Amino acid sequence: MSQAVKTVSEDSQYIIASEPYYQEAGDEISLFQAAYDSRIPMMLKGPTGCGKTRFIEHMAWRLARPLITISCHEDMTASDLIGRYLLDANGTYWQDGPLTTAARIGAICYLDEVVEARQDTTVAIHSLTDYRRTLSLEKKGELLNAHEDFHLVISYNPGYQTLMKDLKTSTKQRFAALEFSYPDAETEATIVCHETGLDRDTADRLIQIAKHARNLVGHGLNEGISTRLLVYTAQLIQKGIPAVTACQMALVRPLSDDADMRDTLEATVQGCF
Amino acid sequence: MSQAVKTVSEDSQYIIASEPYYQEAGDEISLFQAAYDSRIPMMLKGPTGCGKTRFIEHMAWRLARPLITISCHEDMTASDLIGRYLLDANGTYWQDGPLTTAARIGAICYLDEVVEARQDTTVAIHSLTDYRRTLSLEKKGELLNAHEDFHLVISYNPGYQTLMKDLKTSTKQRFAALEFSYPDAETEATIVCHETGLDRDTADRLIQIAKHARNLVGHGLNEGISTRLLVYTAQLIQKGIPAVTACQMALVRPLSDDADMRDTLEATVQGCF
Amino acid sequence: MSQAVKTVSEDSQYIIASEPYYQEAGDEISLFQAAYDSRIPMMLKGPTGCGKTRFIEHMAWRLARPLITISCHEDMTASDLIGRYLLDANGTYWQDGPLTTAARIGAICYLDEVVEARQDTTVAIHSLTDYRRTLSLEKKGELLNAHEDFHLVISYNPGYQTLMKDLKTSTKQRFAALEFSYPDAETEATIVCHETGLDRDTADRLIQIAKHARNLVGHGLNEGISTRLLVYTAQLIQKGIPAVTACQMALVRPLSDDADMRDTLEATVQGCF
Amino acid sequence: MSQAVKTVSEDSQYIIASEPYYQEAGDEISLFQAAYDSRIPMMLKGPTGCGKTRFIEHMAWRLARPLITISCHEDMTASDLIGRYLLDANGTYWQDGPLTTAARIGAICYLDEVVEARQDTTVAIHSLTDYRRTLSLEKKGELLNAHEDFHLVISYNPGYQTLMKDLKTSTKQRFAALEFSYPDAETEATIVCHETGLDRDTADRLIQIAKHARNLVGHGLNEGISTRLLVYTAQLIQKGIPAVTACQMALVRPLSDDADMRDTLEATVQGCF
Amino acid sequence: MSQAVKTVSEDSQYIIASEPYYQEAGDEISLFQAAYDSRIPMMLKGPTGCGKTRFIEHMAWRLARPLITISCHEDMTASDLIGRYLLDANGTYWQDGPLTTAARIGAICYLDEVVEARQDTTVAIHSLTDYRRTLSLEKKGELLNAHEDFHLVISYNPGYQTLMKDLKTSTKQRFAALEFSYPDAETEATIVCHETGLDRDTADRLIQIAKHARNLVGHGLNEGISTRLLVYTAQLIQKGIPAVTACQMALVRPLSDDADMRDTLEATVQGCF
Amino acid sequence: MSQAVKTVSEDSQYIIASEPYYQEAGDEISLFQAAYDSRIPMMLKGPTGCGKTRFIEHMAWRLARPLITISCHEDMTASDLIGRYLLDANGTYWQDGPLTTAARIGAICYLDEVVEARQDTTVAIHSLTDYRRTLSLEKKGELLNAHEDFHLVISYNPGYQTLMKDLKTSTKQRFAALEFSYPDAETEATIVCHETGLDRDTADRLIQIAKHARNLVGHGLNEGISTRLLVYTAQLIQKGIPAVTACQMALVRPLSDDADMRDTLEATVQGCF
Repeated sequence: MSQAVKTVSEDSQYIIASEPYYQEAGDEISLFQAAYDSRIPMMLKGPTGCGKTRFIEHMAWRLARPLITISCHEDMTASDLIGRYLLDANGTYWQDGPLTTAARIGAICYLDEVVEARQDTTVAIHSLTDYRRTLSLEKKGELLNAHEDFHLVISYNPGYQTLMKDLKTSTKQRFAALEFSYPDAETEATIVCHETGLDRDTADRLIQIAKHARNLVGHGLNEGISTRLLVYTAQLIQKGIPAVTACQMALVRPLSDDADMRDTLEATVQGCF
Repeated sequence: MSQAVKTVSEDSQYIIASEPYYQEAGDEISLFQAAYDSRIPMMLKGPTGCGKTRFIEHMAWRLARPLITISCHEDMTASDLIGRYLLDANGTYWQDGPLTTAARIGAICYLDEVVEARQDTTVAIHSLTDYRRTLSLEKKGELLNAHEDFHLVISYNPGYQTLMKDLKTSTKQRFAALEFSYPDAETEATIVCHETGLDRDTADRLIQIAKHARNLVGHGLNEGISTRLLVYTAQLIQKGIPAVTACQMALVRPLSDDADMRDTLEATVQGCF
Repeated sequence: MSQAVKTVSEDSQYIIASEPYYQEAGDEISLFQAAYDSRIPMMLKGPTGCGKTRFIEHMAWRLARPLITISCHEDMTASDLIGRYLLDANGTYWQDGPLTTAARIGAICYLDEVVEARQDTTVAIHSLTDYRRTLSLEKKGELLNAHEDFHLVISYNPGYQTLMKDLKTSTKQRFAALEFSYPDAETEATIVCHETGLDRDTADRLIQIAKHARNLVGHGLNEGISTRLLVYTAQLIQKGIPAVTACQMALVRPLSDDADMRDTLEATVQGCF
Repeated sequence: MSQAVKTVSEDSQYIIASEPYYQEAGDEISLFQAAYDSRIPMMLKGPTGCGKTRFIEHMAWRLARPLITISCHEDMTASDLIGRYLLDANGTYWQDGPLTTAARIGAICYLDEVVEARQDTTVAIHSLTDYRRTLSLEKKGELLNAHEDFHLVISYNPGYQTLMKDLKTSTKQRFAALEFSYPDAETEATIVCHETGLDRDTADRLIQIAKHARNLVGHGLNEGISTRLLVYTAQLIQKGIPAVTACQMALVRPLSDDADMRDTLEATVQGCF
Repeated sequence: MSQAVKTVSEDSQYIIASEPYYQEAGDEISLFQAAYDSRIPMMLKGPTGCGKTRFIEHMAWRLARPLITISCHEDMTASDLIGRYLLDANGTYWQDGPLTTAARIGAICYLDEVVEARQDTTVAIHSLTDYRRTLSLEKKGELLNAHEDFHLVISYNPGYQTLMKDLKTSTKQRFAALEFSYPDAETEATIVCHETGLDRDTADRLIQIAKHARNLVGHGLNEGISTRLLVYTAQLIQKGIPAVTACQMALVRPLSDDADMRDTLEATVQGCF
Repeated sequence: MSQAVKTVSEDSQYIIASEPYYQEAGDEISLFQAAYDSRIPMMLKGPTGCGKTRFIEHMAWRLARPLITISCHEDMTASDLIGRYLLDANGTYWQDGPLTTAARIGAICYLDEVVEARQDTTVAIHSLTDYRRTLSLEKKGELLNAHEDFHLVISYNPGYQTLMKDLKTSTKQRFAALEFSYPDAETEATIVCHETGLDRDTADRLIQIAKHARNLVGHGLNEGISTRLLVYTAQLIQKGIPAVTACQMALVRPLSDDADMRDTLEATVQGCF
């Protein structure tokens, strides 16, 4: 095969330089470590904004492996993952996609919201998730053996799955799974204060609002208030915005367009401040 | 990576040179300022033609940041936002898309009517809206860290959302929100007179017509008369067109093809002049 | 930006050299003139073949502006309007689309049957229709300020709109509107005689047939007989075809495949000759 | 515009060299001649295999104009009609499509089964069918004025139209129409004998079978036996195949897969021989 | 036209070098010969695996014409049949598709399962199947006159047709038809023994099983056991596999996943051995 | 044909170097051997993770043939299988796809989950599966005769088929079939211990859990626990994770998101340890 393969040399860009702050909720760090040691592909399950992305960044730092994150979406093709031919003055050359790069350099490859991707994406990873640990670059005619440090991780939000969009059973059976949910009140308050410098009393009130809202999931709300929105609210308060206004701006309005639901949420906010 | 990247050097074209006229309705300027200071991604909610675009142009001028506006539509792909390879005599080279340009130069990027875009567009912005503030140029193999001044703003018209087309909850949870609606009568009359030179009495009559029409929303009209249409009417009157004819031309005919609704609107026009 | 832009230099091809014949039905000329003076985007509403295209050609001649007409259809993309990269021996270069050309040279741009186009087309014109008067050439990284003489006009046939295909309210609110319908009998006879040299008596009979057929719209006919078909009929009669045969050929057969409807129409023809 | 346009120089390939055999059924030749003299676009209506294609070939020969026939189908794009950019060693050049070629050289352009085409095809011909007689080559930036001899003809099979696939009324209103059906028995026998050398008696029997089958249309058959199939049968008989076998092969089996219908048709065949 | 056309010179690859074994069931050879002599396009109708492909290979050998077989499928475009532009160092050149090659060199072109193809494929062949015998290479601007030896043959499986997928009547009316079905027991036993060397007694038992299974068509089976599967079974028996096991492997398991149907088939197998 | 064909020279990459561990469940090895000796195309039927892939790797090693595995998916085109033109400095050249490579070099080609592929994929293999053993590279104009050692194998999971997605009968009739299911308890325990070094007692408990879960298929579970998941669990236990935690991680969470089903599965796990 005469054609050159240009791999991206700045692998260092995928290294997590400093420790990402992560507050462990259970024994997920040691369980992930055990799965990594056996190179068992992992599935991280849980709702939006509960810390899955932060966890995988933390684990990549802890394991000192480069991390390549791929946000999946329904228009993503297998070529977006695996690679394609490009053209320069000497003709076409092959450029590895992010999955191929990860398999070559021994990175952790994190496929975020993999259920959004089309089936060709999920089928493409099958041979990387069983004992073969190979990736077939069919368009290039290469059968790539994954680097021994390569590890595949996917995220999966069970609340999102529908009849039309779900992982195939033959895909699910290739992963062990960890479950994530919102942190407990104590942990969440610690996170909000650590990230924004907010005083503890105000943080507790925000978390009380979040607790109320999370109880409304399935009763008019699709998802509860994420830790991320609590951090936004705290940041706005720290910038001098009154707490009630900050809550409306970052907790109420983004969540719902339904007038009744917003009245309920705003009453909760009023009651807490 | 040997391929050249041509970035558009005339960033100055995105600078708002003179102050766009904007009549503040509440405290939206200071709230936006606080969100910008924390780089919290913002969602501007509200109906058509109530001033969201004018507001963001005003804020870009006030913050002295370049503004890159992207009108979203259902055929827009992630590549339209992020960039693509083009070909010249030396082979392919990468050209940044408008979102990438904004992230590089530290502009405010305004995604207008983001709900019209396909999911790959909205998923593409996720990593720019959390603590990572990165954009993965997967086709180029580059992980771009956004400029520290970069800010992401989206607009969202709640009246338009349908079962088929809505922002995913995991996207909504990445934004704080401001709400816009039609200005109060006093403010709107000031705007119409300022923009067209119309006398105040005629302006008040136009606004009275608009008030009637806005009460019909949900009773046969999809949306009320926007401030923009009031300005058109005033301009036609200033050019010598009789007020009733100008109203028919700019307020009645564009809004509805239904005979009954048009009779109602025309009766209102007749009653006000 | 090193790439050349080739604009079409023969702008003169868009100039209407001689006055197109147009019989005014009301005050539409002065109303359009006023809208043009304020550069208010215009919507021409009305059924097929009632003279909208002729009117805009007449106005372009009267205003001495070049006219660029674009027939919209559902496979037209934003690139077809705005432009695209082409390739020659020196690599790619940008070629303006017709909308961009119109905005650059200050032409009247007429989007015929705009509701047929996909949403990306209609969204693409938004920034040209408000106070910004800009067109974002996103693929080229250029923000084009429209020429001060540029004017945007769309046509819209209310009888065609369906639940699936209608202009978005946020698009409609960007236009003032003029309404067109079939000319009155006197005017229409004048047109038919002027265009074909037919004698007035025969023309009156043709218009009587058209009047009958137009009353059948909604009762088995989708649309009435257009002025254009009357002109065809007159031309055939002038070539020596018997009037009844000419009517069958140009008025009856093109309009309907339904046997009953055709019997009705043919009886009308027989009754008039 | 620096790019060369290569037009196909062998226009002579579109000339009909010798008179195509055509048996006139009514006055369609003189009616078409009158429409051609006024350049009124024509629609030929009628079922499959009744001679529409032969008629237009005959008229092209009679009028001594080149004929360009385009078989429409649902995957045909406007570019297939109008033209596109191709690439050679000097870069891209424009190649006219068949409709553009016809408009340039003054040919008769025959769009066969135009209702099969997508809407962009039919919209593309609009400006060629009214008084403008222009074709906008939007991708090339050229507004082509049609040659004065250019004439547009479409065919249309009313039996095929469905709710989903029909010509838009705004398209139909651009054509005068001629109707075709199967020839009468005398004419058809003449055709079959002339084309195959079959004796008159056998030809009459074949036409009797066809008459029976055509009465079954709408009662289990979609379309009657075409003149073409009668010619096939006669050819097989002339090659020595027994008449009954030839009828089964060319009249019965191609028409229906339904057992009852085939029994009926075969009984008819048996009864005639 | 300056561009070179590269036709594939190794036409010899399409010649059938040695006589394909074919056991005639009726007079299909002489009927096909007569149709070929008049160049009447032919349709071969019948179920899967009953010998249509073998027949056309035999006829090509008998007529000493090259044979070009095209397996149709729903993603096949007209370009796949007709040809397309390719690029080499001197720019683009045209490459004939298989249908065009067949028309140029005078081959028999066999479109297998033509009903699977999209309509543009079937419409593309129309002008080759009537008296014109031309193929319009619209993208190349060439009107190709077919070689005088060229013959078009299609296969068609009536059991497969659905409301959504059927040949258009205007296509069917362009072909004479021959019907094929499974050979009678005597012929089929001869074929199985000839192809595999199996003893006649065992062959008779296999054919008895096939007879039972073919009676189940429409009562739980979509299609009967083909001659091909009988040959597979005989081959496995000749390799030493016990007859019952060979029948399960090649007759039962491939045909049905339904437990009851499989029990029925297995009981039949047990009863015959 | 002047264009070069680059075939991948490293065929050795497709050779299975060392014996893949495979525990035979019946006589599948000798049956496959007999089919291979006659080159009868094979279909491997059975649920996910029961060893089909391992079996074909074992057979390729045993037969000393290269193995080319292709994971099918709904976006795979015939070109992905057969090959396509690529571009280098000398223009386009043809690159064989994996199916073509297998046919050229005499490999076993394994199409995994072939029912996922589009019909053009399955139709493309037809001519390779009957007596012709040819592959038509239509875009290249080449008719490839398969290497005498070439063998085609597909996998097929009957539990997955739906009304919309099933192999066509005309495809099924081209294969003999072998059926696979989960190994018996004894065999499965041997596999788990051999692959992970787990003690036999714990392995027996894991297999008892799997037995319970497999009985739930059709009563809330889509598929049973695969042998692969048992191996994952054993690996985690070997890394020091408590057995109950390892079961939750690798047997319960990946399989179901339904709360009741998970309670049932967890109770089973608790009962076994």
